[in-house]
Amino acid sequence: MTPDEIDALTFDVFGTVVDWRGGIIRDGTALGAKHGLAVDWGHFADAWRGLYQPLLGSVRDGRRPWVPLDQLHREGLLQVLAQFGIHGLDEAEIADFVRVWHRLDPWPDAVAALTRLKRRYVLATLSNGNVRLTVNMAKRAGLPWDAVLGAEVAHAYKPMPEAYLATARLLDVPPGRCLMVAAHYSDLVAACGQGFRTCYVWRRAEYGTGEKHDLPDDHGLDLVVEDFGELADRLGV
Amino acid sequence: MTPDEIDALTFDVFGTVVDWRGGIIRDGTALGAKHGLAVDWGHFADAWRGLYQPLLGSVRDGRRPWVPLDQLHREGLLQVLAQFGIHGLDEAEIADFVRVWHRLDPWPDAVAALTRLKRRYVLATLSNGNVRLTVNMAKRAGLPWDAVLGAEVAHAYKPMPEAYLATARLLDVPPGRCLMVAAHYSDLVAACGQGFRTCYVWRRAEYGTGEKHDLPDDHGLDLVVEDFGELADRLGV
Repeated sequence: MTPDEIDALTFDVFGTVVDWRGGIIRDGTALGAKHGLAVDWGHFADAWRGLYQPLLGSVRDGRRPWVPLDQLHREGLLQVLAQFGIHGLDEAEIADFVRVWHRLDPWPDAVAALTRLKRRYVLATLSNGNVRLTVNMAKRAGLPWDAVLGAEVAHAYKPMPEAYLATARLLDVPPGRCLMVAAHYSDLVAACGQGFRTCYVWRRAEYGTGEKHDLPDDHGLDLVVEDFGELADRLGV
Repeated sequence: MTPDEIDALTFDVFGTVVDWRGGIIRDGTALGAKHGLAVDWGHFADAWRGLYQPLLGSVRDGRRPWVPLDQLHREGLLQVLAQFGIHGLDEAEIADFVRVWHRLDPWPDAVAALTRLKRRYVLATLSNGNVRLTVNMAKRAGLPWDAVLGAEVAHAYKPMPEAYLATARLLDVPPGRCLMVAAHYSDLVAACGQGFRTCYVWRRAEYGTGEKHDLPDDHGLDLVVEDFGELADRLGV
């Protein structure tokens, strides 16, 4: 794959662009201090994120109608609060904690490298995050997306094919000229299945010290990079 | 309406943010010079734009399935070229001329005022232009949209209610907290019908010297402004 074979870069967001675990620990710690809670917020973050795929699955397989990710995050939070024995948060605190996903910090290389990449390529999110979540995150962090697309506009959660195909269609770019960028091999396999080119990014701190990555040796991807700076270098921008 | 009653500003684009007539004249003149054509490009622009509503109508009323605006612009161009007796453009020239809609220049106040407005509000396009058209225009002109929404993501051309409602839903903002900004009264009437707040912008040069505006005296809109700078002033940003 050469740089001129690509028109658009589509990005997974949680874990790939932003640090969800660090953000939950940050805001959980502040909430815990306010309420005098003794909670391991890293474990809490992992438990909340652990409910992500089961909750998405209930929409993907048609057991329930479409709901935006904010709603699934809320349902997951209520379960995890109960599991950790945290009671006594009021509705405003719960609603605000759900929105921690709108306030996640980007990995340190992200904004500068995306700004470089934007000069030559169309940059779009291809996340399971809903549009408003992704817009709020971008405004706060300065992420320079050209378009916020993905699951909500497709009404299909990744890894359903329509999430990828609707995004490529709205960008008016053939899937083969879209480069899917993600820190998760499973996302890239699904994108590749729809004809996308693929780039794996190592985000070694995504799961804290408990590294948990899924890249096999015989991955067959187009690119594997350490961070977005290396991606920009490899694409010559 | 006070500034804190609004969360998101949604914008019509053609005529409201960018000068479609001037852009067509600019690129038509260059094409005419290359081919030695004697064409009044202002009349040509008006004729091309004049086919816009009839072509949109064929999709709106279900006579044909959804097609993006780029396709309708192409069909309109082919009609207008024939009407003006212009033959001999090759396929690459026709495809490039269709994309003049991606290369329209913003009105002089637009970029600076949108940059001010973006600090406080979510800014989204609510245009009949397709996503890629609107993205290309924004990249070229530096229009700082938070999200590119509107007709294509709704699969409904304005003034169909779903164009407005889908945009508000994706922004997760109640229609009553969205301010629709347009230089066309009919667009604002349709937005108002879905509960949007409304702002009319005078774009006195939209139709060249042949001013053609539709704002009645008893308009009942929330705001009427001379340009986006006045809108930013009125909203206190």
